Amino acid sequence: MSFRRPHLLGLAGLAAGEIGDLLDRAETYWEAAATPGWRAEPTPAIERLSVVNLILEPSTRTRCSFEIAEQRLGVEHLSVGRDGLSLIKGETLSDTGRTLMSMGVNVFVVRHPEVGAPARLAEELGDVHVVNAGDGTGEHPTQGLLDLLVLRRRWGSVEGRRVVIVGDVLHSRVARSSAHGLSALGALTTLCGPAHLLPEPGGWPGATIVDDLDEALAGADAVMALRIQRERFVAGEALPDRAAYRQRYGLTSERVGRLPDHTVVIHPGPFNRDVEIDGEVVDGGRTEIWAQVRAGVAVRMATLAALGEARLEIGSSARAGAGA
Amino acid sequence: MSFRRPHLLGLAGLAAGEIGDLLDRAETYWEAAATPGWRAEPTPAIERLSVVNLILEPSTRTRCSFEIAEQRLGVEHLSVGRDGLSLIKGETLSDTGRTLMSMGVNVFVVRHPEVGAPARLAEELGDVHVVNAGDGTGEHPTQGLLDLLVLRRRWGSVEGRRVVIVGDVLHSRVARSSAHGLSALGALTTLCGPAHLLPEPGGWPGATIVDDLDEALAGADAVMALRIQRERFVAGEALPDRAAYRQRYGLTSERVGRLPDHTVVIHPGPFNRDVEIDGEVVDGGRTEIWAQVRAGVAVRMATLAALGEARLEIGSSARAGAGA
Amino acid sequence: MSFRRPHLLGLAGLAAGEIGDLLDRAETYWEAAATPGWRAEPTPAIERLSVVNLILEPSTRTRCSFEIAEQRLGVEHLSVGRDGLSLIKGETLSDTGRTLMSMGVNVFVVRHPEVGAPARLAEELGDVHVVNAGDGTGEHPTQGLLDLLVLRRRWGSVEGRRVVIVGDVLHSRVARSSAHGLSALGALTTLCGPAHLLPEPGGWPGATIVDDLDEALAGADAVMALRIQRERFVAGEALPDRAAYRQRYGLTSERVGRLPDHTVVIHPGPFNRDVEIDGEVVDGGRTEIWAQVRAGVAVRMATLAALGEARLEIGSSARAGAGA
Repeated sequence: MSFRRPHLLGLAGLAAGEIGDLLDRAETYWEAAATPGWRAEPTPAIERLSVVNLILEPSTRTRCSFEIAEQRLGVEHLSVGRDGLSLIKGETLSDTGRTLMSMGVNVFVVRHPEVGAPARLAEELGDVHVVNAGDGTGEHPTQGLLDLLVLRRRWGSVEGRRVVIVGDVLHSRVARSSAHGLSALGALTTLCGPAHLLPEPGGWPGATIVDDLDEALAGADAVMALRIQRERFVAGEALPDRAAYRQRYGLTSERVGRLPDHTVVIHPGPFNRDVEIDGEVVDGGRTEIWAQVRAGVAVRMATLAALGEARLEIGSSARAGAGA
Repeated sequence: MSFRRPHLLGLAGLAAGEIGDLLDRAETYWEAAATPGWRAEPTPAIERLSVVNLILEPSTRTRCSFEIAEQRLGVEHLSVGRDGLSLIKGETLSDTGRTLMSMGVNVFVVRHPEVGAPARLAEELGDVHVVNAGDGTGEHPTQGLLDLLVLRRRWGSVEGRRVVIVGDVLHSRVARSSAHGLSALGALTTLCGPAHLLPEPGGWPGATIVDDLDEALAGADAVMALRIQRERFVAGEALPDRAAYRQRYGLTSERVGRLPDHTVVIHPGPFNRDVEIDGEVVDGGRTEIWAQVRAGVAVRMATLAALGEARLEIGSSARAGAGA
Repeated sequence: MSFRRPHLLGLAGLAAGEIGDLLDRAETYWEAAATPGWRAEPTPAIERLSVVNLILEPSTRTRCSFEIAEQRLGVEHLSVGRDGLSLIKGETLSDTGRTLMSMGVNVFVVRHPEVGAPARLAEELGDVHVVNAGDGTGEHPTQGLLDLLVLRRRWGSVEGRRVVIVGDVLHSRVARSSAHGLSALGALTTLCGPAHLLPEPGGWPGATIVDDLDEALAGADAVMALRIQRERFVAGEALPDRAAYRQRYGLTSERVGRLPDHTVVIHPGPFNRDVEIDGEVVDGGRTEIWAQVRAGVAVRMATLAALGEARLEIGSSARAGAGA
């Protein structure tokens, strides 16, 4: 089952086959993702895309990852950050989008502080393609896909595997996307963290909640540490004490040292060293965190290529409206 | 009569034939302006240009429009925003310009808060080409051209047509450029708005002033609503009350509904929805505002191509000095 | 003796032959540096580079100069400024670097406020190439090279020439790089300026210190005026009085007028007009300051090309690690 949707707004609701198709495509870009100056052969699917990266929250890795993916695919692209944006003159995101669409832009990579902003843009703009590059505490589907790609490369298949996600799950769009993807592919997710940073269990498919990290790690095939996201705490919400947090929920050198060799250690970055993950662990070569970054470029190339093909197949009706 | 000037600083002073030439060129880019990934065939005129977009005020649409135009033409370009600029170390605009010129940059697209800054730069730098992309309350000639292109496409010719410009005319470089262009092509302009936001009639060629919008709209072929530009009001200047403004001078759904079908409705964007134009009107498909955006890309491609040809024709003396 | 190092972190420690090699390469790009739209023929050395410009201090000329050099070489590149950087989420420079490296970036052009930051990054990242584009009051080697290129073009050789560097030497990475380069090539450097803005003589190879500018200028072959760098003065450090400074240490029209015709006048820019150099002198055509800017593009093209060739020669071990 191929991925033939107009947008990638989240992993929630995608079928295993659709996710598998995107991962298969990403495998074909695995070398490209780490090869300086790599260029794709031009294809009709790619040549008729024009991407804007609307990056409305600070971001290095996501913006750079998409820009590199776009360069290596050879697709027309431009980037708009918070500062350059007419939003400060009071323009709505939808009007900014419609404006860019009228210039022939047809792919919107959107990083936005509000949950649902990319989905609303997709609905309002009609004949364009929207990639959610992180919406508040919502989803970050290409991040979820890159986690899946790294795990699948290690295991062949993620089906039946047990993955622990530890930390500030409540505020984490990364955790949410990964959990949806893992669930779709038949993995089992365990959520772990301070009680006030864990979600209500209902919305997390197939996830169980375990209070004690060491208990959660027993029998785990992988563990994903999440960043404490200071910027998403609302006023009055208590930040965890760093040392206490590290002791109970951090991937310390000591704790990682006790894991069996086959247990995969991942972290979406950026890192709060010696809080949710020890600097020694980041630097030590024990983790897959740099493979995750590489996978990110591969997944973004795959997503854009898949949207380009979907556009070609949707065909003349969509294309006819492109410049309306 | 072809456009063979070294700069595009404003529409004031351009002959009808020069404006017509730029519009004819823009017509040839009409498809390109809305076609993702479109690329011009390389030509000597284009291959020897190097453009810097010096965007010293916040702007999405103008910067993106120029960057897309430059990409589709295949012209060397880079962009400098307010933040990255050495101006904060006390450098003058002229020294920044001379520095870029010494790197082989020969086209300066300049958005600047001060009236006349692009013209001064053109004078100081000598053998380069300057495009005014908006100078304070001065001119914004590519915006004027895109309005003319949209109107000419609707009517065949703008000659003898009646165009109402309503709103904050005093602070509007858009209105000034459009009025000059309309006048050059033989259209009649009516200015309408609160008395303290209207100019002295003298400087506006062929313009009449009408206090009442509904009276102004009687017999109009087109109406252009202007954005209330909060950022240009000086301290102590009274901002109009939103509701009262909308009632008297806004393109409300009700007012637009009463216009004959042939009356063209335009707005330069960004919009203050439900102030100078109702959101319903923006979204309703009754206006040409998205065609204006598309026309903007076409006009900017045309301007750069025309400057490139002018440079070739000016010939060896100019080129010999390019790297001096 | 060719330049075959993995990094360009400073001119200190480079042999005359290495510097000469870089200058010889830069000569081959002299036309390219001032030719809009110039493009290098693709070569294996260039095609396998991927450059990030990490510009963590405000800068027009250095960022634009590198971006133009990268465009004309046809090398993959992207730019990251202070605003877009995840550093604000607490990420270290090393983690940002490792992240970009995992995307296949292998050249880091680094402008940073701290002395030694580029060198630390080079050490921490391993198999990449770092170009120091200015580190605090440390070095700015491509600026030193461009000064040498301009002087060598005037004189054939800088050996035995006398160069006066005047002004805020203490805070100047430009002066330090130029002094190291001049010393390596056998020139004699004289430092001049207010006593509290001069360094201890020890760390400056072959430099003599002269208090009086006019005395220093007697017999000089070139004089380099430095910018007063307000941003590098620490709290409580006294800024010189502008008028008094200009009188004693400024390249005034009067003082420059008294120089023999063969004495070269240079300044790294940006200028504080009428402080360390008179506006009349900047505008007068007597100086080489615009040739310096042009030389900057040539030197940066040369540096990137040399690093690309060094990478090819280092060979399979380095390349095998590129995507690790």
